[in-house]
Amino acid sequence: MSPLAALLRPRSVAVIGASADATKMTGRPVGYLQKHGFSGEIWPVNPRAETIGGLACYPEVAALPGAPDAAIVLLGAERAEAAVRDLAARGCRAAIVLASGYGEADAAGAARQQALLQAAGGMRLLGPNTIGLVNLTDGIMLSASGALEAGGLARGRISVVSQSGGILGSLLSRAADRGIGFAKLVSTGNEADIDSSEMIAHLAEDAATEVIAVYMEGLRRPALFRQAARRAAALGKPVVVYKVGRSDSGARAASSHTGALAGADRVYDALFRQDGVIRAESFNDLLDIPAALAARRRMRGNRVAILTSTGGAGTLLADNCGLAGIEVPPAAAATAQRLAGLLGEPAEAVARNPVDVTLAGLRPELLRGAIDALLDSPDHDATVVVIGSSALATPDLAAGAILDCQARSDKPVLAYVSPHAPHLLRRLNEQGIPAFATPESCAAVLRALQPAALSALPAPRAEDPGLLAGFPAGALNEAESKTIFARFGVAAARERVAADAAAAAAAARDLGGEVVLKLLSRAIAHKSELGGVRVGLAPQEVPEACAAMLRRLQAAGAPAPEGFLVQERIRGGVEMILGFHRDPQLGPVILLGSGGVAAELFQDTALRLLPITRDDAEAMVGTLRAARLLRGYRGAPPADVPALVEAILAFAAMAEAAGPRLLEAEINPLFVLPEGQGVRAADGLAVLG
Amino acid sequence: MSPLAALLRPRSVAVIGASADATKMTGRPVGYLQKHGFSGEIWPVNPRAETIGGLACYPEVAALPGAPDAAIVLLGAERAEAAVRDLAARGCRAAIVLASGYGEADAAGAARQQALLQAAGGMRLLGPNTIGLVNLTDGIMLSASGALEAGGLARGRISVVSQSGGILGSLLSRAADRGIGFAKLVSTGNEADIDSSEMIAHLAEDAATEVIAVYMEGLRRPALFRQAARRAAALGKPVVVYKVGRSDSGARAASSHTGALAGADRVYDALFRQDGVIRAESFNDLLDIPAALAARRRMRGNRVAILTSTGGAGTLLADNCGLAGIEVPPAAAATAQRLAGLLGEPAEAVARNPVDVTLAGLRPELLRGAIDALLDSPDHDATVVVIGSSALATPDLAAGAILDCQARSDKPVLAYVSPHAPHLLRRLNEQGIPAFATPESCAAVLRALQPAALSALPAPRAEDPGLLAGFPAGALNEAESKTIFARFGVAAARERVAADAAAAAAAARDLGGEVVLKLLSRAIAHKSELGGVRVGLAPQEVPEACAAMLRRLQAAGAPAPEGFLVQERIRGGVEMILGFHRDPQLGPVILLGSGGVAAELFQDTALRLLPITRDDAEAMVGTLRAARLLRGYRGAPPADVPALVEAILAFAAMAEAAGPRLLEAEINPLFVLPEGQGVRAADGLAVLG
Repeated sequence: MSPLAALLRPRSVAVIGASADATKMTGRPVGYLQKHGFSGEIWPVNPRAETIGGLACYPEVAALPGAPDAAIVLLGAERAEAAVRDLAARGCRAAIVLASGYGEADAAGAARQQALLQAAGGMRLLGPNTIGLVNLTDGIMLSASGALEAGGLARGRISVVSQSGGILGSLLSRAADRGIGFAKLVSTGNEADIDSSEMIAHLAEDAATEVIAVYMEGLRRPALFRQAARRAAALGKPVVVYKVGRSDSGARAASSHTGALAGADRVYDALFRQDGVIRAESFNDLLDIPAALAARRRMRGNRVAILTSTGGAGTLLADNCGLAGIEVPPAAAATAQRLAGLLGEPAEAVARNPVDVTLAGLRPELLRGAIDALLDSPDHDATVVVIGSSALATPDLAAGAILDCQARSDKPVLAYVSPHAPHLLRRLNEQGIPAFATPESCAAVLRALQPAALSALPAPRAEDPGLLAGFPAGALNEAESKTIFARFGVAAARERVAADAAAAAAAARDLGGEVVLKLLSRAIAHKSELGGVRVGLAPQEVPEACAAMLRRLQAAGAPAPEGFLVQERIRGGVEMILGFHRDPQLGPVILLGSGGVAAELFQDTALRLLPITRDDAEAMVGTLRAARLLRGYRGAPPADVPALVEAILAFAAMAEAAGPRLLEAEINPLFVLPEGQGVRAADGLAVLG
Repeated sequence: MSPLAALLRPRSVAVIGASADATKMTGRPVGYLQKHGFSGEIWPVNPRAETIGGLACYPEVAALPGAPDAAIVLLGAERAEAAVRDLAARGCRAAIVLASGYGEADAAGAARQQALLQAAGGMRLLGPNTIGLVNLTDGIMLSASGALEAGGLARGRISVVSQSGGILGSLLSRAADRGIGFAKLVSTGNEADIDSSEMIAHLAEDAATEVIAVYMEGLRRPALFRQAARRAAALGKPVVVYKVGRSDSGARAASSHTGALAGADRVYDALFRQDGVIRAESFNDLLDIPAALAARRRMRGNRVAILTSTGGAGTLLADNCGLAGIEVPPAAAATAQRLAGLLGEPAEAVARNPVDVTLAGLRPELLRGAIDALLDSPDHDATVVVIGSSALATPDLAAGAILDCQARSDKPVLAYVSPHAPHLLRRLNEQGIPAFATPESCAAVLRALQPAALSALPAPRAEDPGLLAGFPAGALNEAESKTIFARFGVAAARERVAADAAAAAAAARDLGGEVVLKLLSRAIAHKSELGGVRVGLAPQEVPEACAAMLRRLQAAGAPAPEGFLVQERIRGGVEMILGFHRDPQLGPVILLGSGGVAAELFQDTALRLLPITRDDAEAMVGTLRAARLLRGYRGAPPADVPALVEAILAFAAMAEAAGPRLLEAEINPLFVLPEGQGVRAADGLAVLG
């Protein structure tokens, strides 16, 4: 048995600092273990008690009758370290430390946390600053959460990993009310040792777990998380994450809560998308989506049929589905005819979606017939039954009909309950019918039930140590940067480097036509602000333009440039931005965006973590609103999208080959020319460490 | 007493089609009236019963002992019309018709609805297709809603107007669970006569109503709604609207539900903003926002202090506040010192937001002290207390502390309850402390509590019948369109109309410099697609360019143009779009958008219904993401925003003066030149009816 397996399913548990007073937080764990029927050994440790809960109490860890599989340490931060050391010495496999005042608090706390980890030695540690774990599969509570006071905790197929103990407690009590059951719930707290990524990896292999719900403040080991998420996906076990830190206020709060390191939220979004993780947008969704996924059925497309006994709620749901991108098409002729015959209405009246069965909804055989008809409809991938106030008096009617019909189909059947009816939600969920109290959750769930293709994680590319050899640290100039990019196949505009004005003029004549003249300088980040870019010059204008640039540089006290860059003037095509940076927490990131001001003003950008696949590159293009420009907008010719995809892949390959010395890189603009004509990098920047 | 007052607070009620069987829908209304202690006369009408609920039953309307103030008609559509006619004849002031199968169904139903309205004559009508109304202020139920079966309906200061009866029932039961009370609830259904706008106007004057919550599928009388909303705002009674039809699926569903006519949802948004209406984004918000507003306190700014006894939930809330644009600043030195002294922690540890009082949160005097300190903080405009699982055991602790502290401050105090704890939410709400179960609702409420300035509705401008006289129906050409715009002060680019190539060349010489040459044609909507626009021509290039345009027109079989337009070439400035159209439901609309492709691709547009104020025009500019371009982006000079505001006002004045013949108009692009240089309309279109 691995230490994590021992932690989740111990045969013996030591409770360090247990109290005989059940009203105290330290009195809870022994009581919870007993109440929920833990069948192993419970060993309370407290020098001031003889027995606790009828069990022999031990004065110290050394006095325990054996090496415990797991321990729960209820002592404050000042005494927890010694207890952890004693437990490790006694051969305990894994200990849970509840105390706070560690890494989340201040520098002294961070040192204390480091000492705690040292004290654990080879013993695994959950926490500190955790509320512990709950294993409902086996009825084992290793927690002091007040949420365990309440009854009604159901066993189920959802496991939870939460960096916050309070959120774990919140989910427990909310799920109990809704009839949603759990397999395991683990609060990882400060993650001094065991972190959420490792726990997700472990739970993915747990036979009782079908879906993993995660409350996340930040990822300590993104690579391990990605591996775990992909392994879970491969096993058909979706990972659903609610992540805070979407706003600055939230990121700050998370950092002082569990000391989580925040990467940029949009990079998390990219990571989730790349690894098939479903992101819960609202807190309710963190229960609602897993509850629906645990019912195991999936949609084959995105078309839903809504059957309602109350028009307003049906409308509400249809509206929210539409907003979420779910189609709500009316039933086609065959289905409409079947419904019409059943309900005794003209076919036009039922060739609608929602299908309104206000009166018929009170007759079980009609309700069953209508649900069957919609589940058989080839034009719909799922059915939602909307339950109105009239069902409050006869809750079994709708639930019974849905259950019957569900058995005859493999499509998802959900329920939206319009009035306040917790008993009805509970009953439906308990019987395996995902049921929801808000139209927003219902729509979010329908999105989550749709098929998602996960491409294989590409092998990372080896670094090429020669690539950046010879270049100094800091910003490279445009010509240097583009030379590096071009080695991987990103075509630059035709251009010449010129040492002085005369050479620049010669280069312009050589290129022919109007040219673009630029200062070539590593030192000047924004050359256009210093007059260092001139567009549309004739060759004869070039010498004076060079001189003017130098004069302006001198006036500004800027260092002399490395020279000039003379470039063909590119006309037509769609301007894009291709960028690369390192997220401090999540690693190397590729960015594709609309060119000009759109990327910044309208946030029209797509991100991916490296390495990327061709599917990723194509999806990046497709998700931009600027994709419409590329397809040929308002009569313009379609742009060379295949060449853009190649450029994204080439730029990504360049960044991987460059290795950690490459801090950031950008091509802005990247002209995507009409079909068949490729792309041209018209400016470029690389910053080295 | 007005008919609407009589309807909401009748002294006598006739119940047509009442049943003695309380389990039937038709058996409910008499029972509800009795159960909730209606003190007036109840007159059941049913030829087949002697008594109903112990009351004498009348065989027909003509036999009633008097003219009822109100009647509720429980008959089906086929018999309701006769009953309505009889009631009108008997002198009834207002009747409620529950039956469906009218305008929402089909053409025959629409005819039936018209006949019903005719039958009512001077008697007012609520419905058909309504569930009736509930007056909790006076304990009068004129409804068959199954939601009235449940107890726990509290009297409060929120009134509800809902086009859907089912939604009304849903709100009733959800509010009962939450301890949220109502004054009046009215379901307007198909609105054959009394519509939601009229009911809102009536409820705005109701002394017991402080906030009006509206479930809306579509507005039949937008002008009346606007008047009502502004009257309510003037009385300090916010109107909160949840409107469906945000997606096509929702708009379709609404139309077949209550026959609502859908205007464009974005125009509704504009209307709400102009008239101080708060839009509820999620269905929960339709209860949560009014509940908070009914507590009467408002924020002076947008800074919230969060006090939490559970770190995770505090983080969750801070994150959601940040997403909603609410600031979550840490306490400044004085407040931090006060908290530090109180909690015995270093000032750095409490100069955070959320302020975490995990342990101190269990001691009432500390909790009170901390809430007081935050309410006294000059850096915060409201306080949210987050209640964790530990409060489940001692629900009075937090509630008591919040109540005490609230009395010492006039700032809003809210509660977010992290675990499932309906009793706690109920208790807090009942005691006037708005309390929420989701972080999203809490953040939405904080937005709604912020001050909103409502500018006075400007008087509409008189039509100028001469303005469009002489112009034919259909599209005007660019020169004609801009002439009309220019009369109101929208400056056009310098330009000349030329009848032929020679005149065009002369005009180009006259203008000087490079020019823009365009076809002038009413018949050609997209002249650039036919090669009808050339930019940057020298005067000598103009004749051949004109000839080429004519050749291309001929080749395409297009009609001959009215001539050519020769225009100065405008360089620099920021391109915008100024547009006008008529929403089929809501009326004339002004649009301001980013120019080029941004308006369409990125939906960067702002809408307002006419007439508009200067404040509206300034707000339109301010809400665009392109506002950053106007302020001077990346070193560009700031644009002439005052001139843009004048242009918006002028364009709006033009549209009002033009009157209903003007169907649409557009200036695209409108160049906004650098400060002090004004704007230039570089293209223009007007379409007349």
